[in-house]
Amino acid sequence: MKPTLGVCYYPEHWPEDIWPQDGRRMVEAGLTWVRIGEFAWSRLEPAPGHYEFGWLDRAIAVLGKAGLRVVLGTPTATPPRWMIARHPDMLAVDAQGRLRKFGSRRHYCFSHRGYLEDCKRIVTLLAERYGRNPHVAAWQTDNEYGCHDTTLSYSDAARAAFRDWLGQKYQSPDMLNRAWGNVFWSMEYRSFDEIDLPNLTVTEPNPAHVMDFRRFASDQVVAFNRAQVDILRRHTDAPIAHNYMGRVTDFDHFKLGADMEIASWDSYPIGFLSDRLEASAAHKAAFLRQGDPDFQAFHHDLYRAVGRGRWWVMEQQPGPVNWAPYNPAPLPGMVRLWTWEAFAHGAEAVCYFRWRQAPFAQEQMHAGLLRPDSADAPGLSEARETAHDLTNLPYIGSRDGDVALVFDYESAWAWDTQPQGADFDYFRLVFAWYRALRRLGLNVDILPPDTGDLSRWKLVLAPGLFTLSPDLRAAVHSCPGTVLFGPRANSKTGDFAIPDPLPPGLPGLDVRVTRVESLPPGVTMDLEGGGGFVHWLEDMEGTAPVMRRRADGQAALVGNGPVTYLAGWPQDDTLRAILRDLCDTHGIETLDLPDALRKRDTDTLRFWFNHGAHPIVWDGQEIPAAGVVWKARAECYTKSREI
Amino acid sequence: MKPTLGVCYYPEHWPEDIWPQDGRRMVEAGLTWVRIGEFAWSRLEPAPGHYEFGWLDRAIAVLGKAGLRVVLGTPTATPPRWMIARHPDMLAVDAQGRLRKFGSRRHYCFSHRGYLEDCKRIVTLLAERYGRNPHVAAWQTDNEYGCHDTTLSYSDAARAAFRDWLGQKYQSPDMLNRAWGNVFWSMEYRSFDEIDLPNLTVTEPNPAHVMDFRRFASDQVVAFNRAQVDILRRHTDAPIAHNYMGRVTDFDHFKLGADMEIASWDSYPIGFLSDRLEASAAHKAAFLRQGDPDFQAFHHDLYRAVGRGRWWVMEQQPGPVNWAPYNPAPLPGMVRLWTWEAFAHGAEAVCYFRWRQAPFAQEQMHAGLLRPDSADAPGLSEARETAHDLTNLPYIGSRDGDVALVFDYESAWAWDTQPQGADFDYFRLVFAWYRALRRLGLNVDILPPDTGDLSRWKLVLAPGLFTLSPDLRAAVHSCPGTVLFGPRANSKTGDFAIPDPLPPGLPGLDVRVTRVESLPPGVTMDLEGGGGFVHWLEDMEGTAPVMRRRADGQAALVGNGPVTYLAGWPQDDTLRAILRDLCDTHGIETLDLPDALRKRDTDTLRFWFNHGAHPIVWDGQEIPAAGVVWKARAECYTKSREI
Amino acid sequence: MKPTLGVCYYPEHWPEDIWPQDGRRMVEAGLTWVRIGEFAWSRLEPAPGHYEFGWLDRAIAVLGKAGLRVVLGTPTATPPRWMIARHPDMLAVDAQGRLRKFGSRRHYCFSHRGYLEDCKRIVTLLAERYGRNPHVAAWQTDNEYGCHDTTLSYSDAARAAFRDWLGQKYQSPDMLNRAWGNVFWSMEYRSFDEIDLPNLTVTEPNPAHVMDFRRFASDQVVAFNRAQVDILRRHTDAPIAHNYMGRVTDFDHFKLGADMEIASWDSYPIGFLSDRLEASAAHKAAFLRQGDPDFQAFHHDLYRAVGRGRWWVMEQQPGPVNWAPYNPAPLPGMVRLWTWEAFAHGAEAVCYFRWRQAPFAQEQMHAGLLRPDSADAPGLSEARETAHDLTNLPYIGSRDGDVALVFDYESAWAWDTQPQGADFDYFRLVFAWYRALRRLGLNVDILPPDTGDLSRWKLVLAPGLFTLSPDLRAAVHSCPGTVLFGPRANSKTGDFAIPDPLPPGLPGLDVRVTRVESLPPGVTMDLEGGGGFVHWLEDMEGTAPVMRRRADGQAALVGNGPVTYLAGWPQDDTLRAILRDLCDTHGIETLDLPDALRKRDTDTLRFWFNHGAHPIVWDGQEIPAAGVVWKARAECYTKSREI
Ligand SMILES: [Zn+2]
Ligand SMILES: [Zn+2]
Ligand SMILES: [Zn+2]
Repeated sequence: MKPTLGVCYYPEHWPEDIWPQDGRRMVEAGLTWVRIGEFAWSRLEPAPGHYEFGWLDRAIAVLGKAGLRVVLGTPTATPPRWMIARHPDMLAVDAQGRLRKFGSRRHYCFSHRGYLEDCKRIVTLLAERYGRNPHVAAWQTDNEYGCHDTTLSYSDAARAAFRDWLGQKYQSPDMLNRAWGNVFWSMEYRSFDEIDLPNLTVTEPNPAHVMDFRRFASDQVVAFNRAQVDILRRHTDAPIAHNYMGRVTDFDHFKLGADMEIASWDSYPIGFLSDRLEASAAHKAAFLRQGDPDFQAFHHDLYRAVGRGRWWVMEQQPGPVNWAPYNPAPLPGMVRLWTWEAFAHGAEAVCYFRWRQAPFAQEQMHAGLLRPDSADAPGLSEARETAHDLTNLPYIGSRDGDVALVFDYESAWAWDTQPQGADFDYFRLVFAWYRALRRLGLNVDILPPDTGDLSRWKLVLAPGLFTLSPDLRAAVHSCPGTVLFGPRANSKTGDFAIPDPLPPGLPGLDVRVTRVESLPPGVTMDLEGGGGFVHWLEDMEGTAPVMRRRADGQAALVGNGPVTYLAGWPQDDTLRAILRDLCDTHGIETLDLPDALRKRDTDTLRFWFNHGAHPIVWDGQEIPAAGVVWKARAECYTKSREI
Repeated sequence: MKPTLGVCYYPEHWPEDIWPQDGRRMVEAGLTWVRIGEFAWSRLEPAPGHYEFGWLDRAIAVLGKAGLRVVLGTPTATPPRWMIARHPDMLAVDAQGRLRKFGSRRHYCFSHRGYLEDCKRIVTLLAERYGRNPHVAAWQTDNEYGCHDTTLSYSDAARAAFRDWLGQKYQSPDMLNRAWGNVFWSMEYRSFDEIDLPNLTVTEPNPAHVMDFRRFASDQVVAFNRAQVDILRRHTDAPIAHNYMGRVTDFDHFKLGADMEIASWDSYPIGFLSDRLEASAAHKAAFLRQGDPDFQAFHHDLYRAVGRGRWWVMEQQPGPVNWAPYNPAPLPGMVRLWTWEAFAHGAEAVCYFRWRQAPFAQEQMHAGLLRPDSADAPGLSEARETAHDLTNLPYIGSRDGDVALVFDYESAWAWDTQPQGADFDYFRLVFAWYRALRRLGLNVDILPPDTGDLSRWKLVLAPGLFTLSPDLRAAVHSCPGTVLFGPRANSKTGDFAIPDPLPPGLPGLDVRVTRVESLPPGVTMDLEGGGGFVHWLEDMEGTAPVMRRRADGQAALVGNGPVTYLAGWPQDDTLRAILRDLCDTHGIETLDLPDALRKRDTDTLRFWFNHGAHPIVWDGQEIPAAGVVWKARAECYTKSREI
Repeated sequence: MKPTLGVCYYPEHWPEDIWPQDGRRMVEAGLTWVRIGEFAWSRLEPAPGHYEFGWLDRAIAVLGKAGLRVVLGTPTATPPRWMIARHPDMLAVDAQGRLRKFGSRRHYCFSHRGYLEDCKRIVTLLAERYGRNPHVAAWQTDNEYGCHDTTLSYSDAARAAFRDWLGQKYQSPDMLNRAWGNVFWSMEYRSFDEIDLPNLTVTEPNPAHVMDFRRFASDQVVAFNRAQVDILRRHTDAPIAHNYMGRVTDFDHFKLGADMEIASWDSYPIGFLSDRLEASAAHKAAFLRQGDPDFQAFHHDLYRAVGRGRWWVMEQQPGPVNWAPYNPAPLPGMVRLWTWEAFAHGAEAVCYFRWRQAPFAQEQMHAGLLRPDSADAPGLSEARETAHDLTNLPYIGSRDGDVALVFDYESAWAWDTQPQGADFDYFRLVFAWYRALRRLGLNVDILPPDTGDLSRWKLVLAPGLFTLSPDLRAAVHSCPGTVLFGPRANSKTGDFAIPDPLPPGLPGLDVRVTRVESLPPGVTMDLEGGGGFVHWLEDMEGTAPVMRRRADGQAALVGNGPVTYLAGWPQDDTLRAILRDLCDTHGIETLDLPDALRKRDTDTLRFWFNHGAHPIVWDGQEIPAAGVVWKARAECYTKSREI
């Protein structure tokens, strides 16, 4: 199946008489999909119980007749104002205790039962009405769960639900007290009703308390979504998706995604570069108009795993956005490059956000494929070019990764709760490992933490895992090569305690971490033979063979058979060298790519992406700035963007 | 009429028996004015309805008899503690939802009706008692509106008043919904009572919502002031003023000033340099003890416009202050320089703040003309010297600007609401243009945004105007030279939407901004022929002649007749070069002044101000550090400070 | 009496059957003391009125029988959850108005009467039960008063108590209004019930208001502690201590300490370096794994003064901690060095925190002498070595300081209330003076601000004193050498007003500070002959002899007999030069020690401490990195750590 293109559209924003023309222009540009409806509750139900579906009926008909396939969104991310009057306590409360008011979006607490019932009501109505509509070919639940820090709420509704959740988990306060270690600082509870949410404490709360709150909060998102999916399922056979965001780790996307056929995400490379990436000022300047060369790919691979192979980009940045601290425009070529990169990672569809730039309200400075005056915006010609590429393209296919990398949401919560060093962050750690693999020219598969079979990869990486799941522990020996664990791996019990024997407790590896150190910026622990650790160090004891040592003589990397352990946070170059050695050992071919060049193989094609602002000559071929080039892996078919 | 000097005095702070001596010393120092009363409510009405005017009667008599003219302040900036007991809900609420408590000053919400009534009561009593007092020669309402971020309040009183204001403006919720684009994110309202203040929303609120709140808040200040002015008018013929602050843009000073005869402001050059100016560390170090060389002049010109020609400095820094992050002392000479700069810009009077340094309470570290022990402080001798200068001075006169610069408070609110780039700030933008003109040696007139006649200036500048008012649009062709609009000019409708056709929509200029970019610090877009844009860029289309291009070939400056448009934020040097070219075109003579030297012409005199810490030789003449020099523009009269 | 070692232990955290073995291992390691009980309230009184003392009886018996002496803590820093149900308003409120919730520790307001009664109840029960227990050889009240910013609370309980306190102090609102200068800004009160706590005011509150609130808050801590001490006294003859923290200046430790026999403090050198010290990045990097070379010594000397000669380290960092931004491990040798430094300053005992690293709850990443798996942690061997050192050690003794330095808690509150320059901080100022003395190789005594006899020191230093107490004023002439006052000394009356005549008003010194300046970072006022002032400058008049001048001719240092005044904040080198000159004058021998080397003399021994990461050769002897060396001051006994 060839990948397809689409666009996000808001018929309710525009006069009905331009819908047909908009649909025609979309089809002419080569778009297949149109996503609609996801913020339209106030137009579907302008007053409680007063419904207006006529306009949506007509919009779907017009777009469908134009030849488009509709992705229909449930409108639950934007309850109308009257909903807040009905449920004044449905608003979330932030960690500072402030009510998060109506007036933008995502103004609800996942734990509010009354709001959940109203969501089920509107979703039921939509599902009944459009579940068998021939033009509605996919569904989206809500919009960008977790965006704007909305997973965690400190409302009364959340507190009540948390107490229930704890009651279910622990059954008795004594069990909870023991699990959390509440004897420490006399924090013991005699009843679940005594337990509050872990905000605004005098000094930091018990990490076990926070961890359970994080698990609870993630579960609430999953349950909220599942309620919608369950209803949709009863009325439609179309696939259901949610559009995730970049670097949102507050809920477990694997658990949420398990309920749906497709994962999708919203890819804003330039906004994300400025907004949510640790990187030097030089790096951010070099990629100012292109975005980070690995950030999108990481999420492509992550959400491919979440979707168990089926995934989309539901919103693709088509020009400058409005929400980052600074909002430059993409280099010519980048919109096409981003789209192709998604396809090379297996995306079924890429939809641009949005069709026409809205001249009003919060996102009026967010580019669309059309300008506010309906003229073509620069992104449209790149979309059109990409559609043209697709027409001529042979089968792309997919391909297993050369290596695999475990990503675990619980670990993100754990180290956010207990960083121990101010700059220790799980995403940052895993992303550094991902980038190192990409610089080595490798295809990467991302695995959930309960993966039970590692037989497809000769190298599997797992830095920073909070706990080692029974499944993954059992799977370690299925790996035909090496499983490399990184710092802090399996360093806690599920109850957020240090295990005895000491971590990492890996199968077949006699090693114990006896002490850890976090290091401020600028401090390095050198390794023998070059390179060094930064941020984080661990002292070890045990009989495991030492593969690398620190300059002070302590072991840095131990193992050498199926299980290996790296006891620190390596500098980028050091990490690449370590990974290259492991690849060499297992016959995995590596490259040494320049900072801006990336490679991706599929079954049939080899893609090269130049994320830089200057042409790169590689292997005798010039890849233009912001350019993508592909060849048949057997023959030698080339397609490059002319500039 | 010769300009005069004055001082701020608090008789209630001192034993009555030293009032006569204080008055005598003021007169001996050459002072004409004494401002009193503006924080004395607890002494005028120590308990509700219990009045004590006797001391004020005597103070006015003593000071008047000493030969001073009194400026009498209304005490409404400091309601006594019992007032808060009477109206517990009169306190303002900050954007975080916290009550702003009693215990300092400006502790009231402009929207509270009960407090407004009490203000009218005390002002009526003062007006009745002193309106015809021969010593009371001017009035001041309240004190420094907007200071300490007090324009915006998120109280219940403000919310109720905002709903009324919206009802008046829009008449129906549907009108409001359409104007704001509330269909976006289902933000539609069914009643004005559903509309909340735009704080604490989950993500950013609708900019149209915020913009109307900003307009409302400004109107509340204007109405609060007008209530006092209306009362005073009925009882006095003396001119009425309010003392504005530096870089307070939260309310529309033009609207507020329209109700009064005189504008005045409080000039604290050294405090402002450290406290409210974007500038490099080197610049701040170079002007540490002098203040910025253009900041005061800008406000002189701005408030001259607000006062329609009549303006004062009501509070002039006389030594170190207490409220800036760091509080160094002025270089010897600066107090005199600041005073003369005000006169050269047309000030009728300059009053020093304050007479004797108070040894107690919040401002005990704020210098006065006297030390706390009543000895002369260094500022006094400079005041005395200035008074002496004035005695010998011929007619100063005023003079139209060589060029004009539009300043618009709505634009400040608009770009604060939607900066699009984190460092885009309207004041900063306009001030950069003002500074460029001053470095070129020009006299500048500042114009309100509804100016209807531009026939007096061959060059009129309008960067960053939110909307182009009908008056100004109509006036463009009255300009005998060029009106130069700058980035973002007229880029929104009054409803905070992007217009169609696209901006700037300037008369006689076929150009449309098709895309904008904001740039992080350190990123520059070069221009052909040198120079560059920073912070902000715009892409344009249209047939307007291109005067300058960017290095990437895009137009940077278009026009060439009466209307010209600059599509970016130029570096300081680039801006000066562009403005110099335009001046050359229109035969406006420019200079190339050093960083610290400034010139100001009046009808009769040419002033040179050396804001630097080192002497400057200019045109064969040495101007001492912190020195002011003037010459008759025809003859050659010179007066310089001996150091 | 030889100094001793000890450890903090939490029997309630561990199975009872390992208590005997733990006790045995402690004794074998050479430890004398075991501190227990201070967080165990939920185990002593698991439900209101339901007591469980059996486990504590047994723990004391087991430890005592092992040969240990018990320090028993009162558990009032961690009231159980049911206590908050009983007194919901006992929680403190922070300056932002947020309730500081249960879930960690120190969750109480010092002003809550109900909680105080419950504290008295539990302390009475403990005192009755263990006051005569032969194994309980010392008591500790509560834990780390003031830690986590807990001295100041803005609760209703605090407000009510503050009003009472003000009523007691001023007797009438008019007295208070006059003392505070409330006529300024109409802040006058007609009743004590009108006075609120000084938080959340529109702009800064009256400094006199804040100052009284700070005094009140300090008094509340003293009273809270005294209530416990009074009860304990009635039941035990064992000495009572409290464990203070580093750089906590929110309450007056001299006043609190006056009620107890012993002062103790919790010394975390590496955490404090990163967490609460102004220092360059280079300094922090150089001492990353050692802590600052003067920070501990300062507190040793300070708490020696608080304890009137008797003092302990109650908690000594034994390895990496969990609570600083970054948590590196101590260099090998530092645990021993820190211990010896305490002894050299006269500590009676040093107790390590804690015995076994807890694998659960908030401090699970805080090292102990044992690892979580009960194996020896690195700190234990250094403790053992120190115990061995002690066995062989002759009499250490104590010795008066070469110089004395006044430290005053009120001054810390005053300049925190009114810094006048953003980086003016009293502790920072005094600590800079302390460091200068240490770099000169001097023994320093710290004196309380009401010291009445200076006859033991030829040089006494008092920078930044808020007011000069009558006692200290009277004592100035008892000093046989020079009393050197520093910037801002005696610059306020007790009511926080500028005195008349102007400060400093020192006996026998005709000088008045006529103006002060605060300077931003990077600005220096040069002195004639080299060196300079930073941060703070003062202009003076008067006839006092000028010893040093500023480059601009103003006096910088005046005096030359018994009283001298330094009118600025000197650079570190400048300060050392000034102090060296004064020492020379009075025949006090000084050295010029390298950055990392420190010396301390006792009656019998001379200690050298190398706080650096590299060996230092001094006086022909190599002192190893992280090493301590001592010699008999007469003979030549040497003991150095082998590395
Ligand atoms: Zn989105
Ligand atoms: Zn003022
Ligand atoms: Zn502690």
